[in-house]
Amino acid sequence: MDNLDDFIARIRQVTGSETGGLHEPVFAGNEKKYLADCVDSGFVSSVGAFVTAFEESVRDFVGAQHAVAIVNGTAALHLALLAVGVRPGDEVIVPAMSFVATANAVSHAGATAHFVDVDEATWGIDPVALRAHLAEVGQMKDGRLHNKETGRPITAVVPMHALGHPVAIAPLLSVAEEFGLVVVEDAAESLGSFVGDRHTGLFGRLGVFSFNGNKTITTGGGGLIVTDDEALAKKLKHLSTTARVPHAYEFDHDAVGYNYRMPNINAALGLAQMEQLPGLIAGQRSLFNLYSEAFAGSPFGEVRQESAGTTSNYWLQAIQLAEGLKASKNELIQGCIDVGVSVRPMWKPLNRLAPYSAHPSADTPVTADLYDRVVCLPSSAFLANRHG
Amino acid sequence: MDNLDDFIARIRQVTGSETGGLHEPVFAGNEKKYLADCVDSGFVSSVGAFVTAFEESVRDFVGAQHAVAIVNGTAALHLALLAVGVRPGDEVIVPAMSFVATANAVSHAGATAHFVDVDEATWGIDPVALRAHLAEVGQMKDGRLHNKETGRPITAVVPMHALGHPVAIAPLLSVAEEFGLVVVEDAAESLGSFVGDRHTGLFGRLGVFSFNGNKTITTGGGGLIVTDDEALAKKLKHLSTTARVPHAYEFDHDAVGYNYRMPNINAALGLAQMEQLPGLIAGQRSLFNLYSEAFAGSPFGEVRQESAGTTSNYWLQAIQLAEGLKASKNELIQGCIDVGVSVRPMWKPLNRLAPYSAHPSADTPVTADLYDRVVCLPSSAFLANRHG
Repeated sequence: MDNLDDFIARIRQVTGSETGGLHEPVFAGNEKKYLADCVDSGFVSSVGAFVTAFEESVRDFVGAQHAVAIVNGTAALHLALLAVGVRPGDEVIVPAMSFVATANAVSHAGATAHFVDVDEATWGIDPVALRAHLAEVGQMKDGRLHNKETGRPITAVVPMHALGHPVAIAPLLSVAEEFGLVVVEDAAESLGSFVGDRHTGLFGRLGVFSFNGNKTITTGGGGLIVTDDEALAKKLKHLSTTARVPHAYEFDHDAVGYNYRMPNINAALGLAQMEQLPGLIAGQRSLFNLYSEAFAGSPFGEVRQESAGTTSNYWLQAIQLAEGLKASKNELIQGCIDVGVSVRPMWKPLNRLAPYSAHPSADTPVTADLYDRVVCLPSSAFLANRHG
Repeated sequence: MDNLDDFIARIRQVTGSETGGLHEPVFAGNEKKYLADCVDSGFVSSVGAFVTAFEESVRDFVGAQHAVAIVNGTAALHLALLAVGVRPGDEVIVPAMSFVATANAVSHAGATAHFVDVDEATWGIDPVALRAHLAEVGQMKDGRLHNKETGRPITAVVPMHALGHPVAIAPLLSVAEEFGLVVVEDAAESLGSFVGDRHTGLFGRLGVFSFNGNKTITTGGGGLIVTDDEALAKKLKHLSTTARVPHAYEFDHDAVGYNYRMPNINAALGLAQMEQLPGLIAGQRSLFNLYSEAFAGSPFGEVRQESAGTTSNYWLQAIQLAEGLKASKNELIQGCIDVGVSVRPMWKPLNRLAPYSAHPSADTPVTADLYDRVVCLPSSAFLANRHG
C-alpha cells in the first residue's frame, strides 16, 4: 500500500529503530536480589514471605481489603467464577472482544461463555446493548435469569478492561443488578487503571489481575484476585491450596481443590516489579502522548485515548484506523512486521473462534468493526521507561 | 506412650537434632546464576531458553522422546487425562492411597475418580485386586468398559508411584490392556525411580512429574509430561498454550486451551536443580540405609525398602509400624512434632475425604491398614546431602 512507509515512520518517530516486541518487560530494580533472597530463604514454593509481601503490595496499591496471589490470570478468573457460585451448566456473559482466556476460564468452570458486544467509547461491554440483549433473550425463572433459547441460567457477567481502558462500570453494574448477575471483573490488563479514583477490579464481587510476561508488571506467570469480602478471600485461598483443612499433621481436604497458589519465587519477581509500577505507568501514559503527536493530522486514524472520567494505564497502545483503511489493515500489519516493527491486530472476535462459534451470542457489530480497524502498537516497557 | 523417646532417639540418630521440615529442598548449585541469567534475558514467562533446556534435561534423564513442561503437577495430570481422551462423565481408576491431587485432576477433567486398593508390597495399585474389582463391577458395552452400577464408561487408570516406590507396572499394564483402559502414570513423586532399567513415567501413554517445593527437585511450582508419542507431545504443548494456531500476527485458537505452560523463571530454577539430581537421589538412598540401621531390631517396625526389581528414589522415607502399634500412631506423630521432629502420617484415604466419599470405590483394606501404620520420616534434601 502507498502509505505503509509513512505509517512505519510515525511509529519509529516514537520508538526509534528498535521497537522490541509488542510488550516486553523491563527488570531494572530488585528482581535479582529478591530472587536470590528467595533461594536463600529455602522457600520457593507455595508458602513464603514473598507471596504475602506481593499480595500486600498489590492490595495496597489497588486499595482492596484482601488479595490472593494465584498461579496465573486464567486460573485466577476460573477460581473467581467458582468462588462466586458459577456452576457447570450456567451461562456467563463475556465480551466478544477479549483475549481468549476470558472465555476459556468460563469453560474451565464448566459454564458456557455467552458473548455480547463492546461499545465504541470504552471497547468494553456495552451496557445499553447488554440490557437490550438480556431483555430479548432472557426470562426470569425460579427467581433467576435464564436464556430462553438454551434454557440455561445466566448467572454472571465478566467485564474486561480492554488494553487497560476501564469499561463503563456504573451503568454495567446497574444492568447486572437489574438482571441478578454477579459481576467478576477481568482486570487482567488494567493494573493501574481507575474509574474516578477507584481502581478497576474493586467494582465487581471479585477482580482478577494478570502478571504474564506481557503485562504492566510480570511475575513470569501469575495472577491475583482482589476483594473486600473476607470470607470470599478465605475461600479463594482455601480452594487454591488443595482445600486442605488446617491440622498439625493430618491430610484432610473438604472440597475438590486446586493447585493454584502463586509460588514464592514468582512472587519475589513480582514484588520487585511492583516497586517500579508507578514509573512504568507514567511511562506508558507518556508513550500515548508521543504516539498521539506522531499520528496527529495523519490519514491513519486516532490513537486510543482514555475515556472521560477514567485514568488508563495505557497497557497496550493502539490506533483505530480510519474507516477507509479497513481493507488495508492486514497489509499494514504484515508490512510493519516485515521490517521488525511489532504491531498486531485486535484479538479475533471470540464468537468466531472454532471452540466458541456455536455459543450463544448477541450481535457484535462493534467488536467486528474494531477487529477490522485496530492496530496495537509497540508498547514495551523500555520504550515507556525512556519517557516515564 | 512408653517408647516415644526411643522412637525420637532413633530418628535423631540419623538426622541430628535439627530434622528440618518433612522434605525441604537444598539450593547448592547454579540456582541464583540461572535466575539472574533468566532476568537478564528478558524472558521470564512462558517462552524462553530455560523451558526448553529444562525439558531436554528431564527428557534425557528419564529417557523419553518428548517432554512438555507444565505449571504444576496437578495441571500436568489434568492435561494428560484430557490429551488421552478422558471426557466429562467418564470414570478414572485411581488408588485410594495417594495425595489428593491425583483425584482432583480427574475431577478437573470432569470425570469421576473411582478408587481401588493398593498392595502391601508396592503401596501402589494392586493389579490382582484391580482385576477382580473390574470383573465384578464392569461390563463391556459398545466395546468399552462400563461401571454396571453407575452406567458410566471407565476409560483410564492412573497408577501412582507412592513415596517414589514404583508400582507393579507389568501386571498392571496387562489388566489395563485386558479391560481397554488407557494408562497415565502419576510419577509426581518418582523422578529417579526405575522398574528394571526403565524410568517410571515411560510405561503409560503419558507420565506426569511434579516439581513442587517438597519434591526431589523443585521449580517452585511445576510439572512435566513425558511421552514417546510425538503427536501427543504436540497436542499437550498446544493445549497448554491457549491452543493458539501459529500465525505471524493473528490471534486464532482452535480449541478450549489452558494457560498451563511452565514459566521460564521456574524452569531456570529447575535446570539448576536437575544438575544436582544424581547426588540428591544418592543421598536419599543413603538416608534409607541409615534409617534402616537406626530402626534395626527395634519394636517399631520396618523402614520402607524398595521392591524387588525396582530402584527407588526414596523420595520420602517411611516406617511401617508393627501391627500392635496401630492405636499409638497419632500419639507417636504428635509426640515427634511436639519436639520439632517432622513426621506425618500417610494421606487420609481419598475415599474417606468429604468430596470423594460418595464416589465409586472398591474395598480398600490395605489402604486403610497403611494409613493406620505408616509414619513418614524427615527426608529433607540437606539430610540426604550430608550422606550422598
